[in-house]
Amino acid sequence: MKKHNFSAGPAILPADVFSQAAEAVQDLNGIGLSVLEISHRSPEFVAVLEEAVALPKELLQIPDTHEVLYLTGGASSQFFMTAMNLLPHHGKAAYLDTGSWSTKAIKEAKLFGAVEVLASSKDKNYAYIPKDYTVPLDATYLHYTSNNTIFGTQYQQLPAADIPLVCDMSSDIFSRPIDVSRFAVIYAGAQKNLGPAGTTLVIVNKDLLGKVEREIPTMLDYRTHIKKNSSFNTPPVFPIYVSMLTLRWIKEQGGLAEMAQNNEAKAKLVYDAIDRNPLFQGTAAREDRSRMNATFVANDPEVETAFLQACQEANIAGIKGHRSIGGFRASIYNAMPTESIEVLVELMDHFAQKHG
Amino acid sequence: MKKHNFSAGPAILPADVFSQAAEAVQDLNGIGLSVLEISHRSPEFVAVLEEAVALPKELLQIPDTHEVLYLTGGASSQFFMTAMNLLPHHGKAAYLDTGSWSTKAIKEAKLFGAVEVLASSKDKNYAYIPKDYTVPLDATYLHYTSNNTIFGTQYQQLPAADIPLVCDMSSDIFSRPIDVSRFAVIYAGAQKNLGPAGTTLVIVNKDLLGKVEREIPTMLDYRTHIKKNSSFNTPPVFPIYVSMLTLRWIKEQGGLAEMAQNNEAKAKLVYDAIDRNPLFQGTAAREDRSRMNATFVANDPEVETAFLQACQEANIAGIKGHRSIGGFRASIYNAMPTESIEVLVELMDHFAQKHG
Repeated sequence: MKKHNFSAGPAILPADVFSQAAEAVQDLNGIGLSVLEISHRSPEFVAVLEEAVALPKELLQIPDTHEVLYLTGGASSQFFMTAMNLLPHHGKAAYLDTGSWSTKAIKEAKLFGAVEVLASSKDKNYAYIPKDYTVPLDATYLHYTSNNTIFGTQYQQLPAADIPLVCDMSSDIFSRPIDVSRFAVIYAGAQKNLGPAGTTLVIVNKDLLGKVEREIPTMLDYRTHIKKNSSFNTPPVFPIYVSMLTLRWIKEQGGLAEMAQNNEAKAKLVYDAIDRNPLFQGTAAREDRSRMNATFVANDPEVETAFLQACQEANIAGIKGHRSIGGFRASIYNAMPTESIEVLVELMDHFAQKHG
Repeated sequence: MKKHNFSAGPAILPADVFSQAAEAVQDLNGIGLSVLEISHRSPEFVAVLEEAVALPKELLQIPDTHEVLYLTGGASSQFFMTAMNLLPHHGKAAYLDTGSWSTKAIKEAKLFGAVEVLASSKDKNYAYIPKDYTVPLDATYLHYTSNNTIFGTQYQQLPAADIPLVCDMSSDIFSRPIDVSRFAVIYAGAQKNLGPAGTTLVIVNKDLLGKVEREIPTMLDYRTHIKKNSSFNTPPVFPIYVSMLTLRWIKEQGGLAEMAQNNEAKAKLVYDAIDRNPLFQGTAAREDRSRMNATFVANDPEVETAFLQACQEANIAGIKGHRSIGGFRASIYNAMPTESIEVLVELMDHFAQKHG
């Protein structure tokens, strides 16, 4: 019996992607070899990688100034790699602090130059997106986290700024269209909207590279991976393969406008259930609510325990909230079917009636 | 029809591992979730990771001074991470140069301190393992590459040295027992003897860490990953899962002494075929021949083309030699069945009779 998987990441992928991936682990496209045992220089994998690069270009309408890379090390490695590659030693970078991941990005950037934190929502346990700040024009870039997986907030628009943006989009990339031309770097750990854990998508404006003087180890220099099409060394073949399958699925569904519309509709189902049942309370400011991670609490700890138990009985997995906020978190990425959300919402209504 | 896969890496894994991995992509242990969609904090994955750490400890009899980590970035990232974590700014490290990978490791280490290359076999296109050198006692460590995938050479013993060793064992880890206590760091990209591409095994002596003064980004500091059991950030779940399955298989086969014996016997089959057929010539010095990658050339280019063609017809894949040496390379890692080697050897004999 397949579970309804509301996990924040690694997270649900389309059912077809699981089937295709399982088949390829036995035999890739009938070539008599598993996708796990083919050379990364083989024509079969080169074709996979080319498609995995072409699809983001098409879906996000990425301009020619930008390259699409598949790296490893997670968004956590991009926290320092962005600064290492972009921030001159005597330069300054601007950061917006909207939660744990922003905080970590800020910490790592400080190793490479001056960091100015323009605004933070830490005062309210990151329950909102700060909107009142001035972006210094002498900063090299403005870094932000587009969706805050833990705190359930999300930027509804790109921050207003006259300098290039750098963004951790780990948990909402490919969930809606974005204007890539505004970004120096977009990075995203695959394991939410893109694929399994083990690869990190990086979209980088190559015109902004090569402007720092520090010596960068070969593997940490974006230019290495641009020059070698993400195959300077052996790339994570299977995570890239599965990401490619997911991107194909997104395209088949109609692309990012369609994704955004579905995500809007799916999020509305969850937030409406939160708002109509006084037993539950949303934790994020309404105007900043994430379409990817709906966070909510119950009005007492016993109810929380009982609801978690009820979820388990209803085959709902991964709904427990992060320890820094408690309660519940329904992660409803692209691949989450409306049917699973309906199961959750019905349970919430039913539970609220019974315990309300 | 399953191919005989002689690819140098990513490489063949045991057939049972492919089946189990494919099943887990659909449903891990019957829990109703794919291994690709479970949280890295879930009890299911925590158990996988614990086993993936316990098995190397058991198989390699790793002393308590050493920790087992699963990182990303490949051996190529360890080229600089070893020096970054171990080599003091005014310190010195000693290196042995036995091929492309050693050369790259040397290049990256130079960013962090003085590097003394004690010996190199570059004079003969890396066809042998240099044995005549003195290890300086004031060097922090001696770095070497235990098996040279491209050039088909392998250290048959650990280098004699009174300082800690650092070794790139990407292509022969778990192929034979080793004395881990002699090493500061052992690292290995998974994609030869351990698992699919996407994770890097690092075995590190924790007593030797924390002795450099430079500021290290959090993700590049071994201590981060030791403290957080390789889960500081989301680890590459699936590559680790498959590595764990392969380690289980190695244990079931009887462990590393058994692996070494089988590898010896399998390599003998290939080298005997090379040596008895004047059509073919081994490229590596006999005493340094690799048990993992047997490199050989044919006595003229037309024969090479014809033999490659014959291999293809016999369902033999991945046998073409690396461009820096030409000819053929039979990669015969742990998982390579004797039956596949017999197919190759018979073809070699048959071909030599016909074209000799």
